[in-house]
Amino acid sequence: MTTAGARGRGRRRGAPDTRGQILEAARESFAHRGFTGTTIRSVATAAGVDPALVHHYFGAKDDLFLAALAIPVDPRQIVPTVFAEGVEGSADRLLRLFLSVWDDPERRLPLVALVRGSLGEDGPVNLLRDGILRLVFGPLREVLPPEEADRRTALVASQMVGLVVARYLLPLEPLASMRDDDLVAWVAPNLQRYLTGPLP
Amino acid sequence: MTTAGARGRGRRRGAPDTRGQILEAARESFAHRGFTGTTIRSVATAAGVDPALVHHYFGAKDDLFLAALAIPVDPRQIVPTVFAEGVEGSADRLLRLFLSVWDDPERRLPLVALVRGSLGEDGPVNLLRDGILRLVFGPLREVLPPEEADRRTALVASQMVGLVVARYLLPLEPLASMRDDDLVAWVAPNLQRYLTGPLP
Repeated sequence: MTTAGARGRGRRRGAPDTRGQILEAARESFAHRGFTGTTIRSVATAAGVDPALVHHYFGAKDDLFLAALAIPVDPRQIVPTVFAEGVEGSADRLLRLFLSVWDDPERRLPLVALVRGSLGEDGPVNLLRDGILRLVFGPLREVLPPEEADRRTALVASQMVGLVVARYLLPLEPLASMRDDDLVAWVAPNLQRYLTGPLP
Repeated sequence: MTTAGARGRGRRRGAPDTRGQILEAARESFAHRGFTGTTIRSVATAAGVDPALVHHYFGAKDDLFLAALAIPVDPRQIVPTVFAEGVEGSADRLLRLFLSVWDDPERRLPLVALVRGSLGEDGPVNLLRDGILRLVFGPLREVLPPEEADRRTALVASQMVGLVVARYLLPLEPLASMRDDDLVAWVAPNLQRYLTGPLP
């Protein structure tokens, strides 16, 4: 009776549950050990549960990463839609998808935290590189000619990361308050050149 | 005698001198209060000296900023050389100047510290925006048509900040190890379009 009562009160007050403990341990590990330094096993150990339970609740490490950092969209689901009609002309769609996520203050919040946590002094830069950028740009790499895919993808990433910093983190005017259509008209042709322009 | 002796020993051991105390107070202030929150007067107060002495040693606030953060070059001196022959064709020169500074590990070190300190959680982002970017891109703004200068400058900044993050901070391959000539061939045309391309 007493135990059940205590548990009941605890739950109403938001006492830690297993799923929450795993998420907390994962957040902690990603923030301090980065993406590559975090494993399902190490998170399970920190949360005091079996690795199988982490898999059961969250799937693979990429899924745990997205859940733990509260990433508002799954890049593996939405980015491929941009390239469904081919890479030619896709920069416009890629940029509009990017803006639809980043221009939304609520969706932007966890992304800003991820970028700033990763780029700060002593921050795990691989959280940005091997965590989110790999998930965002993986689908792009797959639709490009293999021998050019890495270079073109990294160049696209450089411009988009620069937009993140200049438009949302600094923020740098007039880039920060530029309307989407203007921004797309300025930036998409440059992205498209990185994607499909002739090799220089 | 005793005092003079103590002072002599202290100097050999690197005891704080006035100039060093001012620099230390300035570093502290820029790191915690950012560029806009730091004044010659507040640095003087923190260092326990007269503001006139700060001016005497370091000149204006921009000079103190460059000295305190050990910025390896004065953008006000070198950036205008890029545009001396006009903006047309200047992207190539701008990018090569950028690479000559950032590809040098010793010159890169304080710049990386500045960027990471500024972009990190709770970091003063205005250190990057109002401190270094203003000094770097001020000379560019002056040579562009006034009604387009801010937009074009901010777009150029977005690509160059993106290169800083992708090539030097993450670092993202193959961008990080791409030879200068390759990088210039890929990126300069995009920068040039931001500089002088037709309005979209």
